[in-house]
Amino acid sequence: MIIEKILIVDPIDGEYCGDVEIEEGIIVNVRKKENFPRYVLMPGFVDPHTHGRAGIDCMSASSVEFEIWAEHVRKEGVSFLFPTTISSSKKLLEKVIYNFSKAYHPILSFLHFEGPFISKEKAGAQNKQYIMGFSKNKLPHLKNNVKIITAAPEVKGFEKLVKFAKDNNIIISLGHSNGTFKDFKSAFEQGIDRITHFPNALRTFYHREIGPIGAAFLYKFYVELIIDNVHLSPYFVKLMYKILGPERIILITDSISATGLKDGIYELGGLLVKVENGIAKTEEGILAGSTLRYIDAVKNFKKATNCSLKELSMVTSYNALKNLGMRGGRIKEGYPAKLVLLDENLNVVSTII
Amino acid sequence: MIIEKILIVDPIDGEYCGDVEIEEGIIVNVRKKENFPRYVLMPGFVDPHTHGRAGIDCMSASSVEFEIWAEHVRKEGVSFLFPTTISSSKKLLEKVIYNFSKAYHPILSFLHFEGPFISKEKAGAQNKQYIMGFSKNKLPHLKNNVKIITAAPEVKGFEKLVKFAKDNNIIISLGHSNGTFKDFKSAFEQGIDRITHFPNALRTFYHREIGPIGAAFLYKFYVELIIDNVHLSPYFVKLMYKILGPERIILITDSISATGLKDGIYELGGLLVKVENGIAKTEEGILAGSTLRYIDAVKNFKKATNCSLKELSMVTSYNALKNLGMRGGRIKEGYPAKLVLLDENLNVVSTII
Repeated sequence: MIIEKILIVDPIDGEYCGDVEIEEGIIVNVRKKENFPRYVLMPGFVDPHTHGRAGIDCMSASSVEFEIWAEHVRKEGVSFLFPTTISSSKKLLEKVIYNFSKAYHPILSFLHFEGPFISKEKAGAQNKQYIMGFSKNKLPHLKNNVKIITAAPEVKGFEKLVKFAKDNNIIISLGHSNGTFKDFKSAFEQGIDRITHFPNALRTFYHREIGPIGAAFLYKFYVELIIDNVHLSPYFVKLMYKILGPERIILITDSISATGLKDGIYELGGLLVKVENGIAKTEEGILAGSTLRYIDAVKNFKKATNCSLKELSMVTSYNALKNLGMRGGRIKEGYPAKLVLLDENLNVVSTII
Repeated sequence: MIIEKILIVDPIDGEYCGDVEIEEGIIVNVRKKENFPRYVLMPGFVDPHTHGRAGIDCMSASSVEFEIWAEHVRKEGVSFLFPTTISSSKKLLEKVIYNFSKAYHPILSFLHFEGPFISKEKAGAQNKQYIMGFSKNKLPHLKNNVKIITAAPEVKGFEKLVKFAKDNNIIISLGHSNGTFKDFKSAFEQGIDRITHFPNALRTFYHREIGPIGAAFLYKFYVELIIDNVHLSPYFVKLMYKILGPERIILITDSISATGLKDGIYELGGLLVKVENGIAKTEEGILAGSTLRYIDAVKNFKKATNCSLKELSMVTSYNALKNLGMRGGRIKEGYPAKLVLLDENLNVVSTII
C-alpha cells in the first residue's frame, strides 16, 4: 500500500511532504516529494491510561468487550491502547488479566494497573478499602499483561516494588501520592521517571515544600496530562509545554465507560460516578476520570500550546512508547505501520494498522 | 582611586581580571589585565525591600536612625537601600516620608510602600485595619520619596493607581494579593512587571487556576525573593533560577528591626513580633519579615543555585535597578562607583561608595 501526497509528521525528522509505502504492517519506504499534501500522516496515538469507553469498564470487561472498546478508539486514531485498572481485590484484578489476555485486537497493548499501591490520602475516585502497601503476593500473576503500575513512592514496600517492576519489565508511574519533593527525587534517583495524570491526586506545590510538581520541574520526569480543560486549565497546559517541553509530555484520556455516551450514572470499578455536562464525579464531588476522546485531547493540546505537528507527534505517540521501551511512534523505514491520517483540522480520516 | 588586581564582575560584560579607576564617585577606567586577583569586585548590592535593622523600624525611625540603619547595611555591601513601610494611617506614612526626606546617607535611595492597597485575605503580618482600595487622597504627598508601591491587582481603584504611579515615576510591585492568574496577566498587560516577596502572601499554584505563580512562569515578571531558607526552600530557589532565570530575580531581605540583634520581642509597624532562632512571627504564627542580612541572602542564593558571579551580580544589583529605571549595577566607565569588594567566600572586605 502506498499513501501518497501527504504531510508526513515524524517526532525526530519533522514535517515534510511525501509518500509512504507499507508492506505487511511495516513501513518499507518513505519518500520526500515536493507537492501539495492532501492529508497529515502522524504516528498512531497512544493512550496509556484509560478506564473505559462506550459503556465498557476495564474492571468488568469481557474479552469481547475489550475488543469492542479497542475498535471504538481505533477509529479515532489510537494505535496503542492500555486499559487501566483501579485499586481492587486480587481476585478481580486476576479476572481482568484473564479477560484481557483472551482478547485480540491489534491496538490492545498492555494493562496499566493504577494502584493498589497508592496513598489513601490521595485516593481520588479509588476505593480506599483496596489501597495498600506493596508485597509481591498481593498481586495476581501478571503473565506479561501489565506494562505500567501507578504507585505512590511513600507506600510501604516501594523499593521492593521497584525491584519487582525491573525484574518484570514493568514501568512504574508515580501517582495518587502524598509524597514530598524528596520522595519523588529519591524515586527518580531509583530510575522512576514517570508521573500519572500530573498533577492530579498529588501534593500541591508550595514554596517551602515544592512537592512532586517541583520535582517534575527540576528533574526529567515524563508526565501524563489529561487535556480535557477540566482536570487542567489550558494555561497550566501551556505552562507544562513551556517548562517541561514537548519531550516530556504524554497525553492520556483517563476516560471512563461513560465516554462517547450521554450524561448519567455510570460505574468506575464498582464506584458510582455521575456524569454531568461530560464531567464525571463521585458522590463526594471528586473528579472520577474523564469522558475525553483521544482526538479531542490532541486538538485541545494544539490549541492550548500552539505547538508544531512534530511536537504533537511526540506528546501523542513517541514519548509514551519511548518511556515504555516499546518500538513505534515514528514514520520511518522499518517501523510498524501504525499510523493516523488527519485532515488539516486534525479530524481523523482513517487509522492505518 | 585605583582598585588593583581584582576579579571584576559585571552583569553584562561578565567576569575578568583587571583594575578599576574611580574619580569623584564615577568609574573612569576599567582595565582588563591578566593577573591573579586578590578580591572580587561586584556592583554594590541593592535591597529594595527592608523594614528595619538593628532595633530601628521604618515606621518609627527618626532621620538619624535612617542614617544609622544605612550605615549598618553599607558595611555589608548594600549600596542602594529602600526602607519599606507597611500599611498604616496616612498621618504616620506622612511622618515616615518627612523623617526619611531629612535623612542623608549616600545609600538611602527611596522608600518602598508595601501597602496599604493590598488584600485583607493576604495581609500576612500587616494590620488589616489600614488595608484599603486606592484613591489618590488616601496617600500622603510623596514628594518624590517613594519609588515602589506594593499593591494587589484586584483592589478597588487599581487602574487609577497604575496611572498615578506612571505619572509619578513610581514602580508598582504586585503583592499581598489574592488575585487570580487573570488578574496578574491583566496587570502585566498594563505594564506592571514586578512581584513582591514572591510567592509569599499570594494565592497558591493550582492546576485549574495557576494563579500569580503561573503568571510569573508564563510572563516576564521580575520577582523579589527572600533567600533566608525560611520563607523559601532552597529547592524553590533552584527552581526559580531554572525557570525564571537570573535575569528576573531580585534578592531582598524583607528584614525587620530585630535583624542583627538577639531573639526576643520586636515591633513591626505597631504589631508585636516574636523572634525565635532568627525567625520572626506574629502572635498568630504568621511569618513577619526576616532577620536576614543581605550578604547572607547572597551566599544562600549562590549555594542553592551554584550560579556564576555574573549571575549573582544580576540578582543582587543590576536587575533591581533596571526594573526601577535607575542607573547603576554595572562596573563600566561612566557608571556611579557604588561597589563591593568581596573575598573568595563572598565575605565583604569593603564597600566603596
